Amino acid sequence: MADRTEIDVLIELMAKLPGLGPRSARRAVLHLVRKRALLLTPLADAIGRVAVSARECINCGNVGTSDLCPICADPQRANGQICVVEDVADLWAMERSKVFKGRYHVLGGTLSALDAIGPNELRIPQLVHRIEDEAVSEIILALNATVDGQTTAHYIADQLETRVELTSLAQGVPIGGELDYLDDGTITAALNARRKV
Amino acid sequence: MADRTEIDVLIELMAKLPGLGPRSARRAVLHLVRKRALLLTPLADAIGRVAVSARECINCGNVGTSDLCPICADPQRANGQICVVEDVADLWAMERSKVFKGRYHVLGGTLSALDAIGPNELRIPQLVHRIEDEAVSEIILALNATVDGQTTAHYIADQLETRVELTSLAQGVPIGGELDYLDDGTITAALNARRKV
Repeated sequence: MADRTEIDVLIELMAKLPGLGPRSARRAVLHLVRKRALLLTPLADAIGRVAVSARECINCGNVGTSDLCPICADPQRANGQICVVEDVADLWAMERSKVFKGRYHVLGGTLSALDAIGPNELRIPQLVHRIEDEAVSEIILALNATVDGQTTAHYIADQLETRVELTSLAQGVPIGGELDYLDDGTITAALNARRKV
Repeated sequence: MADRTEIDVLIELMAKLPGLGPRSARRAVLHLVRKRALLLTPLADAIGRVAVSARECINCGNVGTSDLCPICADPQRANGQICVVEDVADLWAMERSKVFKGRYHVLGGTLSALDAIGPNELRIPQLVHRIEDEAVSEIILALNATVDGQTTAHYIADQLETRVELTSLAQGVPIGGELDYLDDGTITAALNARRKV
């Protein structure tokens, strides 16, 4: 099989993607080769273009194709709100809801003593700079409702509470959620944060 | 988000791969962008090269990067045996076992009256030609043990039984298989094909 290396190399690289293993990588590459015009050529073009142009936004840490991501480059989104998220994937999830009209700040993870991740590893200093530089009226902490996420949220709140208004996402029953399937923590949070009907 | 199109396009294309959906495609693309040097650039190179060079072997139907696949180009594999498989994935599975030293013939599917797939859609005429052109002593039918696979095997056997020796893969208990978990059909086949110890 000496000469099949180009396809072998592609299978090996595809198998390194999250969610794909050796078998599904083989299946994906065979599918690509069969759908050459519809999928393989466009995918090769798209991945080549992203490999050249993808970069991190120097302001918020979002992934884009220029130094400033589309959100930071759009003056209409400078409404004084900054939504702080752990990860670019979280930013994309917020954007899909189409409800937030301000800008973001991607921390790049959570504080973790075990992994030696402190504030300087997390773009927290950059967040402090942005509060000084941009006319920020509200910081919305949209960190994951995990122990690490909430620890990080508390740390940021401690740092910033004297300088800017701080809010965080509401915790409670997810839309469509059934009480019987919810964990105790969520039910407790939803009960504590109950509102008048 | 107008300017994020290059990354959006890549996510959309990745989501069309078997085994990936929109969420895992987003995760894969973020992973790629983060591992630019280690994964994104090599993958862009590899997929670009495959997009240019991948083609079907004119002799057996295997996928390779030249008109004759490495197996058909290798004179050492012209041992008179041709292993008939449904699909390139089956050929690769046979090759991984490293036990078969002959050549292959990929049918490209199975006969199916419902889907209007007859012998001419299946590279069966090419198989007949190869028996005439190459010095073939044995055809090994390695079709899947499904109804469609076995129907196709019977059809090929009918066509070729006067011209060449025909064999098929043994059916029985898989290595490591537990009887309690096997279906009745497999147990029946294994019992009928029992051998002296």
